[in-house]
Amino acid sequence: MHDISVEQKILSKNDELAGENRELLTSKKIFSINMVSSPGSGKTSIIEKTLPYLKERIKIAVIEGDLQTDLDAQRVAKYGIPVKQITTGKACHLDAHNIHHVLPWVMEQDGIGLLIIENVGNMVCPAEYDLGEDMMITVMSTTEGDDKPLKYPAIFSSADVLLLNKTDLAPYTDFNIERAKENALRINPYLKIFETSCRTGAGIKEWSDFLAQTALNGHGKI
Amino acid sequence: MHDISVEQKILSKNDELAGENRELLTSKKIFSINMVSSPGSGKTSIIEKTLPYLKERIKIAVIEGDLQTDLDAQRVAKYGIPVKQITTGKACHLDAHNIHHVLPWVMEQDGIGLLIIENVGNMVCPAEYDLGEDMMITVMSTTEGDDKPLKYPAIFSSADVLLLNKTDLAPYTDFNIERAKENALRINPYLKIFETSCRTGAGIKEWSDFLAQTALNGHGKI
Repeated sequence: MHDISVEQKILSKNDELAGENRELLTSKKIFSINMVSSPGSGKTSIIEKTLPYLKERIKIAVIEGDLQTDLDAQRVAKYGIPVKQITTGKACHLDAHNIHHVLPWVMEQDGIGLLIIENVGNMVCPAEYDLGEDMMITVMSTTEGDDKPLKYPAIFSSADVLLLNKTDLAPYTDFNIERAKENALRINPYLKIFETSCRTGAGIKEWSDFLAQTALNGHGKI
Repeated sequence: MHDISVEQKILSKNDELAGENRELLTSKKIFSINMVSSPGSGKTSIIEKTLPYLKERIKIAVIEGDLQTDLDAQRVAKYGIPVKQITTGKACHLDAHNIHHVLPWVMEQDGIGLLIIENVGNMVCPAEYDLGEDMMITVMSTTEGDDKPLKYPAIFSSADVLLLNKTDLAPYTDFNIERAKENALRINPYLKIFETSCRTGAGIKEWSDFLAQTALNGHGKI
């Protein structure tokens, strides 16, 4: 009981700060997304492939969350986009407090319209920590097994969009794309699903167009 | 500070229980392993491929840790091996307390020599929670990127063995096996590394022989 009450206090404090983040971002007309997945599902590669489609249309800033290293931030910085690294140490997820600290840096950048937050690779805890984002994107790759939505339901039920990534590898695995979609939609019927491959580029334009349109229209949390 | 002291209390209680688990298992001559990885790296498939090599040599029981569902337990049960499911709900890792509760069930099975514990898919928190096992096995697949040891160092530094899995998919990715090994050994020079593929069977015999030999010799925590 004691642990649960500590957890509830932490989550309630987090929700409060997430609310403040959301209010500030909305007041500045900055649309924000929170990208979550297990380690190595391709979040950074998707950001790298999405940036060229978006950067003429909307000014972007990126926050990279990692336990250690700024390898992902370095990859994104090559695209001439402002990037801020948050190194979480032992913490297995970003929280609203982390983002709260970095928002002044976002505001210093000129005319940002889209804030992309790449969370720590973890399919469990990020589902519980609202960062104040407008849209949560869960990425799942075809090498991870099509039963993942049933085994890690929270990360699918919290998400607004599912990117089924690495579709180029699907033929070499037992992954059944239709079954994965069915499983995901069983957990969350409102999920908007895109099939993507960073290697072939399949689906990246469709996903990028959707993101640009949603960000420019300023649709809030679905 | 408050959160840190709560975490330290939880971890210190965990270590105490892990010590009791280890003592009990050792006294019954049961060798135990704790398998950790991100979701979908192939832990269950490796167990499925390993069982046929081992089951004539040593009696095995399996504990399956999952947030939700007993899909993995069902897969393992087909091999005629006693399996116990632990459903963790929202908890992103097994802890020594979970195992403590299940050990009486292990003792009821006849003549178990090897206990395989499959942890929840997560590359962060399982590194901190000793379960009382003799050997920790980290699984990492070639579709996850060869930089993972640098980005999630704790799960590699706590491990005794690294299984580089899904080597059959490496030719279709940018994954460099030698670089992955170098990165892993930079974090933990004592790692024993096997390259495995559940699809082609490559490396499974070598890994299984090593496990059988280590378990039968009763080598404790390295």
